[in-house]
Amino acid sequence: MDQIISPALDQDFIASENAALTAGVEEDYDALGRALDRRGIDIEAITRAVAAFAVAAPSWAVGSGGTRFARFPMGGEPRNIFDKLEDCAVVNRLAGATPTVSLHFPWDEVDDYKGLTEFAGALGLGFDVVNSNTFQDHPGNALHPLSYKYGSLSHTDPAVRAQAVAHNIHCAELAAKIGAPALTIWLGDGSNFPGQSNFTRAFERYIDSVTTVYAAVPGGFKLFLEHKMYEPAFYSTVIQDWGSSLLAAQAVGDNCLCLVDLGHHAPNVNIEMIVARLVHAGKLAGFHFNDSKYGDDDLDAGAIEPYRLFLVFNELVDAEYRKAPGFAPSYMLDQSHNVTDPIESLMTSAVEVQRAYAQALLVDRAALEGFQDANDPMMASQTLKRAFTTDVQPILAMARLRKDAAIDPVGAYRASGYRSAVTRIRPAKAGGSGGIV
Amino acid sequence: MDQIISPALDQDFIASENAALTAGVEEDYDALGRALDRRGIDIEAITRAVAAFAVAAPSWAVGSGGTRFARFPMGGEPRNIFDKLEDCAVVNRLAGATPTVSLHFPWDEVDDYKGLTEFAGALGLGFDVVNSNTFQDHPGNALHPLSYKYGSLSHTDPAVRAQAVAHNIHCAELAAKIGAPALTIWLGDGSNFPGQSNFTRAFERYIDSVTTVYAAVPGGFKLFLEHKMYEPAFYSTVIQDWGSSLLAAQAVGDNCLCLVDLGHHAPNVNIEMIVARLVHAGKLAGFHFNDSKYGDDDLDAGAIEPYRLFLVFNELVDAEYRKAPGFAPSYMLDQSHNVTDPIESLMTSAVEVQRAYAQALLVDRAALEGFQDANDPMMASQTLKRAFTTDVQPILAMARLRKDAAIDPVGAYRASGYRSAVTRIRPAKAGGSGGIV
Amino acid sequence: MDQIISPALDQDFIASENAALTAGVEEDYDALGRALDRRGIDIEAITRAVAAFAVAAPSWAVGSGGTRFARFPMGGEPRNIFDKLEDCAVVNRLAGATPTVSLHFPWDEVDDYKGLTEFAGALGLGFDVVNSNTFQDHPGNALHPLSYKYGSLSHTDPAVRAQAVAHNIHCAELAAKIGAPALTIWLGDGSNFPGQSNFTRAFERYIDSVTTVYAAVPGGFKLFLEHKMYEPAFYSTVIQDWGSSLLAAQAVGDNCLCLVDLGHHAPNVNIEMIVARLVHAGKLAGFHFNDSKYGDDDLDAGAIEPYRLFLVFNELVDAEYRKAPGFAPSYMLDQSHNVTDPIESLMTSAVEVQRAYAQALLVDRAALEGFQDANDPMMASQTLKRAFTTDVQPILAMARLRKDAAIDPVGAYRASGYRSAVTRIRPAKAGGSGGIV
Amino acid sequence: MDQIISPALDQDFIASENAALTAGVEEDYDALGRALDRRGIDIEAITRAVAAFAVAAPSWAVGSGGTRFARFPMGGEPRNIFDKLEDCAVVNRLAGATPTVSLHFPWDEVDDYKGLTEFAGALGLGFDVVNSNTFQDHPGNALHPLSYKYGSLSHTDPAVRAQAVAHNIHCAELAAKIGAPALTIWLGDGSNFPGQSNFTRAFERYIDSVTTVYAAVPGGFKLFLEHKMYEPAFYSTVIQDWGSSLLAAQAVGDNCLCLVDLGHHAPNVNIEMIVARLVHAGKLAGFHFNDSKYGDDDLDAGAIEPYRLFLVFNELVDAEYRKAPGFAPSYMLDQSHNVTDPIESLMTSAVEVQRAYAQALLVDRAALEGFQDANDPMMASQTLKRAFTTDVQPILAMARLRKDAAIDPVGAYRASGYRSAVTRIRPAKAGGSGGIV
Repeated sequence: MDQIISPALDQDFIASENAALTAGVEEDYDALGRALDRRGIDIEAITRAVAAFAVAAPSWAVGSGGTRFARFPMGGEPRNIFDKLEDCAVVNRLAGATPTVSLHFPWDEVDDYKGLTEFAGALGLGFDVVNSNTFQDHPGNALHPLSYKYGSLSHTDPAVRAQAVAHNIHCAELAAKIGAPALTIWLGDGSNFPGQSNFTRAFERYIDSVTTVYAAVPGGFKLFLEHKMYEPAFYSTVIQDWGSSLLAAQAVGDNCLCLVDLGHHAPNVNIEMIVARLVHAGKLAGFHFNDSKYGDDDLDAGAIEPYRLFLVFNELVDAEYRKAPGFAPSYMLDQSHNVTDPIESLMTSAVEVQRAYAQALLVDRAALEGFQDANDPMMASQTLKRAFTTDVQPILAMARLRKDAAIDPVGAYRASGYRSAVTRIRPAKAGGSGGIV
Repeated sequence: MDQIISPALDQDFIASENAALTAGVEEDYDALGRALDRRGIDIEAITRAVAAFAVAAPSWAVGSGGTRFARFPMGGEPRNIFDKLEDCAVVNRLAGATPTVSLHFPWDEVDDYKGLTEFAGALGLGFDVVNSNTFQDHPGNALHPLSYKYGSLSHTDPAVRAQAVAHNIHCAELAAKIGAPALTIWLGDGSNFPGQSNFTRAFERYIDSVTTVYAAVPGGFKLFLEHKMYEPAFYSTVIQDWGSSLLAAQAVGDNCLCLVDLGHHAPNVNIEMIVARLVHAGKLAGFHFNDSKYGDDDLDAGAIEPYRLFLVFNELVDAEYRKAPGFAPSYMLDQSHNVTDPIESLMTSAVEVQRAYAQALLVDRAALEGFQDANDPMMASQTLKRAFTTDVQPILAMARLRKDAAIDPVGAYRASGYRSAVTRIRPAKAGGSGGIV
Repeated sequence: MDQIISPALDQDFIASENAALTAGVEEDYDALGRALDRRGIDIEAITRAVAAFAVAAPSWAVGSGGTRFARFPMGGEPRNIFDKLEDCAVVNRLAGATPTVSLHFPWDEVDDYKGLTEFAGALGLGFDVVNSNTFQDHPGNALHPLSYKYGSLSHTDPAVRAQAVAHNIHCAELAAKIGAPALTIWLGDGSNFPGQSNFTRAFERYIDSVTTVYAAVPGGFKLFLEHKMYEPAFYSTVIQDWGSSLLAAQAVGDNCLCLVDLGHHAPNVNIEMIVARLVHAGKLAGFHFNDSKYGDDDLDAGAIEPYRLFLVFNELVDAEYRKAPGFAPSYMLDQSHNVTDPIESLMTSAVEVQRAYAQALLVDRAALEGFQDANDPMMASQTLKRAFTTDVQPILAMARLRKDAAIDPVGAYRASGYRSAVTRIRPAKAGGSGGIV
Repeated sequence: MDQIISPALDQDFIASENAALTAGVEEDYDALGRALDRRGIDIEAITRAVAAFAVAAPSWAVGSGGTRFARFPMGGEPRNIFDKLEDCAVVNRLAGATPTVSLHFPWDEVDDYKGLTEFAGALGLGFDVVNSNTFQDHPGNALHPLSYKYGSLSHTDPAVRAQAVAHNIHCAELAAKIGAPALTIWLGDGSNFPGQSNFTRAFERYIDSVTTVYAAVPGGFKLFLEHKMYEPAFYSTVIQDWGSSLLAAQAVGDNCLCLVDLGHHAPNVNIEMIVARLVHAGKLAGFHFNDSKYGDDDLDAGAIEPYRLFLVFNELVDAEYRKAPGFAPSYMLDQSHNVTDPIESLMTSAVEVQRAYAQALLVDRAALEGFQDANDPMMASQTLKRAFTTDVQPILAMARLRKDAAIDPVGAYRASGYRSAVTRIRPAKAGGSGGIV
């Protein structure tokens, strides 16, 4: 499998794109440095932390997403995991924030995992937490094609549960082959009608299945349970919220943790508080970052409510500050790019996640703690808001510049002609009508 | 095109299924009649009204639905509009409440509409309001395959708008051919990102396009505008609520009305009040009935919040009672049957809509008006609740029995073996991964 | 303290009110009995269970409620706990479903608890779970008047926490004096601004405070923790959902359980599933019944979404059916009667709770389990719906008739002239502007 | 009525407070100016626009707010409209953004409106849109004390409607006396139970009442209708959304417009789109600014979702840019300050509103229009985000500095000792239990 040759992956090209912008970045960075210095903040410490911050790119998100109504593919869609890794390499090379990729099985299965790992390594990529899939039937399933219509790990039929358990164990084995540290289990199990499912018996079956998977994985390997309020099930979902996720993770074992996808909650829910509670419980696995206005919209991180993303990072930085025991969350993007070029969305989203982190680092935590203890909500609130309203763009740009990534990732990407190039190489995929017809 | 021979469509079979149940229905009906008589209600008047009540079946809903994650088809899925009509005939024959079908173009296009109408007529079916589709690209589109990725009737490109306008005019022409009285326009136009679309310019383009369609349809023909809060667009939708729908309908003309789909509103919204407001404005087109707990879940009518369905019908019966000018709404089901046999869901849903109508007819409106005028919320509330808690099952069953439909539609359907029969005849369709991959 | 003499409490009066209605009830009851018999259900077993079912009345709910905008009191508002008990006695005598009262301290504090218990006993009333109050400052507080502005059990100031802990211990002591089995702790602690409160430190303080209370109460006495999404705090609440409630209850001890108020959840949340999860965890304390459409509306139980109330009872009856270990929830009403006579609302609400229970008892659980195991959502759903659509009014009326309560509680109450009588005796209370001015 | 002497109102004091901060502001302002210049933006034009931007302060918001559960007053609460104006003067002098005050009748009624106007003028204040109140009964009401329990302008009783109409006409007359341009009508009319109110008849009565008010006011005077989803009514509200508000305003007349309170919508609703629709319809009256996470939380503007506030201003600046006919909205704050010093919250909120306006002015509208027309959601979105992430703090501070207001309004306010001073002068007010007891 030859790797693609593209200016988007070429350091000289990136440098030439950066050339015209560098002076501006440096001027802004110096000015911000002086302003932060007046506030007692060392800009270099922030920049170093930002440069060290990484979030995994999801292999599935480099293709065009769709809804149940339609999918409108762009050109040059990746045909397989190798194409996906090339796209992810562009994301990482230009935005400098996504050195690892999260795989999704069976979509990303290959024959040769050593070869896959070398291929990724040559592109400067490693692997992060992997994902299993029991919300669809797989061509190779013994029970194909309708085995998961009524559930998987919580199915009433032991044969279906066994198939789903086996698939998850298989995913954990693949994870071990590529050096991934954990497996995220999200499933769509639930019901569309009151009465269809017995909530308690389904939950017990789920816990039993996950416990079986847990028993089969190596000692240090982790299982991440991902809750979701609804969709694809529209009346009940087995792991519908963090409370059910917590109960299940407690039942399964110490290395079973709870993963938070930002789009999987009820309207109005205070997600940053859920983050704090999972940190308190020692059960925070990490995140699937995205943004949403209505449901599981899977929009680009920070596109809709950037302050919410900041408040989530405020909890994370606070947990580091308080040295919360065992605090080591995994960060992943999980988005559906229905109307944008996925490469552009992933770069931009990674930057937005970094932005929220940088802003959260600017919070004067000693002052904040003082305002909290003194019940001074005005100054406490303003302490957060002042960090949030600070323009950290120069910090983000400088961190990229120093890593030989692009000051303007989208601009450089467009200049590189990458999309046109892969459109010529990769055959067009069919669009589609989504799931409704 | 030969029509299917099935016991499900056979009057003798239905009669034989009813035989064992008839005595029970009659006993319950008599008992209810006496109880209602004590409340001053003539059961026969209610039964006649129920028997006369009809709701259109949607042609698209006899196939298995799906989500963006997956579609799990059952056997015997209809291959074309003729198969769909046969399924709809079963629904109507057994449940006796859906004598018309709503078509969806281009999905249901045929060469010979006279033949289609005769085929339907032979099955005892007529046609109701038709639906256009500009949320997907069609194989024959001049601008295929990505013309509607960024909108249709409100698209920034005049050529795309012209194509969408032409499609809608074409649908109205097809409607005329089959005797359908109106065209429902729902489109997914909107945006996924703040800034992507200029709300006002998009709205102006939409109104301009619909006005063009309106000018091209015959005088008595109606256009129904269907609003929806979100999905497939996840930040903004051009016709996002009844307010925008009303503004557009006012701008287009007198025969342009506003259609309410019960699943298209924000959380907690009082939908029955929207119905009342549209009646007040003389702009209520009618309904797409379904039920939902979270978003546009498209679940079976009455499955989640039956009291809400009753309250909608309470408004409709109240409008009849007050003789609201021009009040003549169209009733259609619009559901996605992801985990049930669509024929069973459609029968059951039609019955649930009738149930809500029957319950609403039981409301003592003179008494209610008195309690309202006297500000007696307790008795007003109890007046509605007493109608709702009355078990109208005997009325619904008797209405079916008298129409030679099945007392127990699902039971008779299962006994008929219809699904097995069509599964043998119709080739299996592929499942699918929904829109996400 | 003399007890009031009113026809509302007089058995002969009630019997005379029932006289004209008895024949109708008996006819309907017999007809329903035959219909249920055809479905294999013994009506007498249901009627006995309904007659044995009880829900506690809240002492605070017999006065007119209000909002932050205004309170519009009716006449004859109770002046103290003795007046409240008389009102509660009317509720229980006429509706026959609320033999116990939940007190709220300090509102219901008296000098002589033995006397209070005897007074209640003479009215046929006992006491259920008591409630503490640290969302308001109390006249006698050492730290009055602004001690709870920024929290109580989770306050940053140890002196405030100690005051709140002492109050809760005091409430538990009062509970012991009147034979109440548990104390419900609901508090408004939270924040209105991001940053105002450190989520984790506040939670730790809360757990520490409750643990201190727990250590001070007698062995068998229970603490019930009540979660609420928001209000009076509008950004974060310390015990904002069942997950936080569970974490806290786990930390405190075995006799610390989680109470569910039906109006305290995020929009669209599946509350019946939360009930199931708390049963599974062995942590379900019980309920505060009410209904809501938007927020914590505190409307009459079953007034808005009666099917939701039924589905909650479906879980409770299912837990009994499955013999869930330690399952013994407490049932209480918790409502705010802003526009109705509270006595009427409490009677009606108690009946609605019984109605949901009766409907849930009608569910054929063996059949339901079969449909669930067979993945037959249509029949499973219809099994629940058929129980819900059955008119159990005759059962409820017969249960009341047999207990010498009123067939038509509201009618009998109005006929009794109780409200006019107490309006003459009890001085008018001022209305008010609510909290906003 | 002597005016208060306080450093908070003293120009020299403010200047001295500014002294230490001026150099930093100037350095940041220069740096930002250079950065914006590189983006083609003239910072001086933005600063001038910000300096000219004003939002009215609400007279009712300078006292501590509360909930139905409790009100915890701070010291020095204003006793009357004169005290309130002094507090508002401090807000305006220090933050330089609220030169007018919105009065609320009957709360702010006085004997001598000429004197009131002069008093305000001496404090540098004028008057903006006034507000009526029919959600509470007033001491002087002929029909006191329970006239509005079941509604006001839409009440079933003509006498109550006449009283409410007369009150609104009276408010319009008072508005004329003080030079206020419009009257905002918000009322709590609605229902708590299905059936309590006939939606249509209540709406017709409402329109009739407002039409009567409209006929009685002078030609150029405007009526603003304010919609709200719920509270104090918890099942239905007569003007529940912008659709009902629009229908009513259309029925009443050209000078009857629709006012948007940011906290009065269903969860997840796209408020900026409603703004665009009302601009399109020529019916946008203006705003009540505040922020909310759950319901009508009345939190400080920009405290919860600052990006949403920005997106609202993006629509407003876009309407100016497109020269929308008749576009001239009124801007008012409307908040409840339950845990902060109201003066601090009002200053901060005015600044946040200015911040959103300044950010919206930074949007490159020609570029945005180009991206929209080209269906480039990525660049369109980034165009808005880049404006939003720009730190406009130096612009806001410079605008204040040039107006002799405080660079750091909260800091200067605290240094002035104003709260302590008025606490000595003004007697303590009682806290309270809110509306629930």
